Amino acid sequence: MSAPAVRAAFVLPAAGRGRRMGASTLKPFLPLAGRPILVHVLERVAEAGVADEAVVVVPEADRAWLERTYGAALRAAGMTALVSGGPRRQDSVARGLAALCGDAPLVAIHDAVRPFASAALIRAVCAAAATADGAVPVIPVVDTLKRVRDGRVQGTVDRDGLYGVQTPQVFGRARIEHLYARAEELDARATDDARLAEAAGLALRAVPGEPYNLKITTPQDLRLAEALLAAGLVPAHAASSP
Amino acid sequence: MSAPAVRAAFVLPAAGRGRRMGASTLKPFLPLAGRPILVHVLERVAEAGVADEAVVVVPEADRAWLERTYGAALRAAGMTALVSGGPRRQDSVARGLAALCGDAPLVAIHDAVRPFASAALIRAVCAAAATADGAVPVIPVVDTLKRVRDGRVQGTVDRDGLYGVQTPQVFGRARIEHLYARAEELDARATDDARLAEAAGLALRAVPGEPYNLKITTPQDLRLAEALLAAGLVPAHAASSP
Repeated sequence: MSAPAVRAAFVLPAAGRGRRMGASTLKPFLPLAGRPILVHVLERVAEAGVADEAVVVVPEADRAWLERTYGAALRAAGMTALVSGGPRRQDSVARGLAALCGDAPLVAIHDAVRPFASAALIRAVCAAAATADGAVPVIPVVDTLKRVRDGRVQGTVDRDGLYGVQTPQVFGRARIEHLYARAEELDARATDDARLAEAAGLALRAVPGEPYNLKITTPQDLRLAEALLAAGLVPAHAASSP
Repeated sequence: MSAPAVRAAFVLPAAGRGRRMGASTLKPFLPLAGRPILVHVLERVAEAGVADEAVVVVPEADRAWLERTYGAALRAAGMTALVSGGPRRQDSVARGLAALCGDAPLVAIHDAVRPFASAALIRAVCAAAATADGAVPVIPVVDTLKRVRDGRVQGTVDRDGLYGVQTPQVFGRARIEHLYARAEELDARATDDARLAEAAGLALRAVPGEPYNLKITTPQDLRLAEALLAAGLVPAHAASSP
């Protein structure tokens, strides 16, 4: 196989403690089909064949024991560095960016709890990002949306043109580094990196996402992920995929 | 067990042909774990113990053969009448309402392709409807929402207060009959009954819905439904539920 035309450095923020999973749980390290969720994520990234490096960002207080416990398995799955994060998500992303050592022209920021983003999706988002300031995977909203306040339906919201956004979110490297160089000043309400990029005026392409590109944030999500694997609706192992 | 305090007549519109399933497919009759989806739906409704009657509305051209093929199974699951629908969803709901013969004070309109609305949810929505003009089950939007046009991200939409709506949607009988008496004039863009009710100024309560109260509209949804059943994330049979 010839070298891939698109190359990206991956930053995987894994520093959030899941309040919905219990305060002491580091969600990316919970077992899914017997292996940490993050190992699945790294395997998919490696399988995509576009990653020059993959930096995982964990809470500072946990870095040492996570390295001892999971370091070998994570490296075997493609991780190139395990670094300490900061208090907010954007601080952790900034530290992940600072830890990159290669020269890939794109940076992909990918949730460490999305084990089912396929290799094909990861490649597609990177390819699209190379033609704009960045790119994100999106799926159309299928539910009819209501605005609800105090247990009362206020009205129906037009869902036309509305999409849910997933990761990986991929950006031109210079642009995202410039953005995160001022991480302290960034909007704390930013729930995803694309929002910061939009606020900075970057042109982002939307790529069709995947319905099973699940973000595991609750025990119920984890049970659903196990069910999807058991039913063969998502590939179980990188090795079994094309 | 004493008689339930809340009583509702159920209307189950099953007259839509699923374009996403292929033009000739009547989605509610597709097999799920070996039985038509609609049989699962009717079993949950019966299990809730609040249904005085349950009218299923099917395409006029199909009514006769559906009666011959599925009539007995549907009646065994709780259906009380199988009637012909009209060209639009609201026409079918209007014909279902016209076919009701009991005097239940509430009308529940429930998608014939939502096999996993639990008996508890059905009871909760009916109970809430009895204290207002109507009630609907809703689940919070968890994805970050983007507005996308022509493959470009236009910006982030505040998801605060936004909920996806499910069924059953339950209304005071006099109010919904009044609304549907003018079915021909109703807004053809109405994607759910609550929208019509809102437009008429009715006060609707929002009840917490269920994440697995799936609407089966694509082959992929059907595979997901099978996976949820296989994993035991939703009860397989009414008889096995409390």
